[in-house]
Amino acid sequence: MLKIGFLGPEGTFSQRAALIYTGENQAELVSLPSIRETLLAVEHGELDLAVIPFENSLEGSVNVVLDILAWEVDLLIIDELILPISQTLMITPGAKWQEITEVFTHPQSAGQCRLFLENQLPQAALHLTNSNSEGANQAKIKGTTAGAIGPEQAAEIFGLEVVLRDIQDKDNNFTRFVVVGKNSVHAQTDKNKTSIVFSTEHKPGSLSCILNIFSLWDINMSKIESRPARGKLGRYIFFIDIEGHRADPDVQDALTMVKRKTTFYKFLGSYPRVDLD
Amino acid sequence: MLKIGFLGPEGTFSQRAALIYTGENQAELVSLPSIRETLLAVEHGELDLAVIPFENSLEGSVNVVLDILAWEVDLLIIDELILPISQTLMITPGAKWQEITEVFTHPQSAGQCRLFLENQLPQAALHLTNSNSEGANQAKIKGTTAGAIGPEQAAEIFGLEVVLRDIQDKDNNFTRFVVVGKNSVHAQTDKNKTSIVFSTEHKPGSLSCILNIFSLWDINMSKIESRPARGKLGRYIFFIDIEGHRADPDVQDALTMVKRKTTFYKFLGSYPRVDLD
Repeated sequence: MLKIGFLGPEGTFSQRAALIYTGENQAELVSLPSIRETLLAVEHGELDLAVIPFENSLEGSVNVVLDILAWEVDLLIIDELILPISQTLMITPGAKWQEITEVFTHPQSAGQCRLFLENQLPQAALHLTNSNSEGANQAKIKGTTAGAIGPEQAAEIFGLEVVLRDIQDKDNNFTRFVVVGKNSVHAQTDKNKTSIVFSTEHKPGSLSCILNIFSLWDINMSKIESRPARGKLGRYIFFIDIEGHRADPDVQDALTMVKRKTTFYKFLGSYPRVDLD
Repeated sequence: MLKIGFLGPEGTFSQRAALIYTGENQAELVSLPSIRETLLAVEHGELDLAVIPFENSLEGSVNVVLDILAWEVDLLIIDELILPISQTLMITPGAKWQEITEVFTHPQSAGQCRLFLENQLPQAALHLTNSNSEGANQAKIKGTTAGAIGPEQAAEIFGLEVVLRDIQDKDNNFTRFVVVGKNSVHAQTDKNKTSIVFSTEHKPGSLSCILNIFSLWDINMSKIESRPARGKLGRYIFFIDIEGHRADPDVQDALTMVKRKTTFYKFLGSYPRVDLD
């Protein structure tokens, strides 16, 4: 049976994504205490796959995932899932949410609900936790003066009551999860995506040179994210997603050219593309 | 007397940056509880300036600053400071750091010390706090089983002892702070930098079109960062720093062209450039 890891404990958005990914298939879901430990468990062969949050439409990429994929492991993205994310406010049953003085939540959720916290709960102190489940647990322990923000299922697990739904700053809130493993599994399908990470020489025009390669081969780019090249302000590595599969001749030729023009290059996977619209 | 805001409370890296920026000059330093409140106080005229953390060489940009500058305020960057950042581990005097079971720190500091936490303190639970000063305060309250990570001066303020210095993942750790205000103050100096934020049409080649404009006018780009365009996965806004002042004829012409080719454009300031080397 496949062993699939996720950032736990029970009740996180990652758990929900892992359950949806598994669906009707037999698999053992394994909860891990951090994203790094989840990815390293796959790298070391203790897990077959992991379902990992990758980017959110409001709060952006999950930096720790980008950094670990670039520098610490040799894993491939083999699938993606895009889930609508509804942040809920949960409190001790019977308490009044307008009167809480403390809110517990994960930094990603706090970032997605910045305006709500500012406008609706200006009196409440914000406490950042390692997971939304831990936040719900803390709120439960604190009692009627505390609330937590996170997925609805955390309320059920920790005996809290959901008093407000969709409190994120825009209705349009999606998180893209990726499934990572040691081996690529997908042949070409109708709609594919390929992810790479690279850095270029530190000289004018070197990034536009890379982007021009994709234009040249008429390849659409669906994501570009920069991260610091851990060491020097102003040096970056770039994560790019393009449409197409590594086995497509155009993608193959374009990536060969990208490799030539970059100082660091890593292929992160070709996998079926999920479109939102 | 100038009123200058910073993310407090006492003992944060931001306070140190504000003190260094002020130097010998008379100014009233005002501590605020969040980066948003600090920026909004300048926007509303309650403060003249604010000293704000902008990006770190290990952990990257401070997302909340980028988002607020892009969407919520109309402020200009008028100066920058680059400070070496030494993360220290502080504990209750007399305790053993190898035996602590809890660590309190701000998410940015936790991100800068990921490997240290993983390798040296695998047994310790990580608690994220709103500031490093709050982390030091929490550790003090918890006693000998707890530690905090942050700037050395926080140890002094909260009666803790620094037991390890420079525990961030690389020695080369710098944070770039920016000084923001309502009005631009600097004429051209010898070495200037200009910051802008923009988004482009969602079609292939639109970002490389912008980067090519800078190549065309021989303008060096010293930073590029993407952030989600709050609303849709795969749409981004880009923060770019270029060398030169808005009043330089080439910069002026290039920015005029950038404005033409972007769907959203905002000038974030021209100011004296600080070089690291």
